[in-house]
Amino acid sequence: MNQKIKMNMYSIGTIHSPFKEASGTPIQPCMAEESNGYVEVFPEFREGLAGLDGFERIWLLYWCHLANESSLTVKPFLDKAEHGIFSVRAPSRPNPVGMSCVRLLSVDGCRLHVSGIDILDGTPLLDIKPYIVKFDSYSNIKCGWFDKGKKSEKAVADSRFEKSDASAHNTLK
Amino acid sequence: MNQKIKMNMYSIGTIHSPFKEASGTPIQPCMAEESNGYVEVFPEFREGLAGLDGFERIWLLYWCHLANESSLTVKPFLDKAEHGIFSVRAPSRPNPVGMSCVRLLSVDGCRLHVSGIDILDGTPLLDIKPYIVKFDSYSNIKCGWFDKGKKSEKAVADSRFEKSDASAHNTLK
Repeated sequence: MNQKIKMNMYSIGTIHSPFKEASGTPIQPCMAEESNGYVEVFPEFREGLAGLDGFERIWLLYWCHLANESSLTVKPFLDKAEHGIFSVRAPSRPNPVGMSCVRLLSVDGCRLHVSGIDILDGTPLLDIKPYIVKFDSYSNIKCGWFDKGKKSEKAVADSRFEKSDASAHNTLK
Repeated sequence: MNQKIKMNMYSIGTIHSPFKEASGTPIQPCMAEESNGYVEVFPEFREGLAGLDGFERIWLLYWCHLANESSLTVKPFLDKAEHGIFSVRAPSRPNPVGMSCVRLLSVDGCRLHVSGIDILDGTPLLDIKPYIVKFDSYSNIKCGWFDKGKKSEKAVADSRFEKSDASAHNTLK
C-alpha cells in the first residue's frame, strides 16, 4: 500500500514569459501583476480549452525544469529561517511541480495570454484548471511561518533553487 | 521549443480516505467538511514536513490513478453542459493530476490528519504545498460556467470518470 509508484507525464504545452533565469523572476503571481506572458497549448489539446475564456483566473501546473535537486529543508525567498520543503513553495521539490494562479487576459486559438506570470520562459506545462472561488478561496486562516516569520521584503527570486547547469538544460525546450 | 517532453515523477506518500470508489466521493473539499482522512508520507520525506503544522490548510497534489482516459470535452459533475477539460476540475485529464485544498488537523510523524477530503483511498501523493492566503485566495472574480451554468445540486461524484477496470488498478497501491 505504501509503495513508491512511478508516473509518466507529458507536457501539454509550453509557458512563455519575459524571465530567462530565476534571478529577477517574480516570486508569486501576486508580486507579478505587471508581468505578461502566454501559454502555448499543443494543437492536439486545443478542444480542451473550450469555455476557459469565461474564467478570470486559471491555475497553471508546470514542471520546474530548471530547479536544482531538492533538499528536504530550505530557506524560502520570503523568510530568513529554514523550513521543510512541503511548508514552502520553492521550486526544488521531490516532484518539482509548480502551481501558479495567473490572470487570464484572452484566449486566441491555442494561445492563452496571461498576466501575473512568475514562471520561467520555456517551462513545460502539465495542466490548466479553472480557478473557482468556491473551491479555492479561503481567507482568515493561519499560514504558519508566512504569518509570523522574519519576512524578507523580496518580491523577486534569486538563483538559490536553480540548477548550476541551467543553460545546458535548455535543450529540453 | 514547442515539443512534447516526458517527465517522470514518483509518489512521495499515499492518501487514505473513507472513499473506495468514485461514486459517493465528495466532489470538492468544500463539499466534504465532515470527511476525515490521512496522508502517509514515506519516511524518507519526513523532514520536509517541518513547519507544516502551523498552516490551517494545505494543497495536496496527487495522481488520479483510477481516472479513465481523458476526453477533451466532458460534462462535469456540477453542470449539465459540456466543457473543455481545462475549464473543469474532472480527474480524467491529459495528465491526471488532482489538487485539493484540505484542512490540516494535526501532524503525527509521517502522518497528516486532514478533513475535507475528496480523494479516493490509496491515491498516490505527488506533492504538498502550504495554502498561503496572499498567494492563493481571490474573491469576486468571474468563474465562467460555474457562475451561470445550469448547475446540478450534486455534492458527490458518480463513476463517469472512473476506469471500468478500477479494481484491477488496485495493484498499483
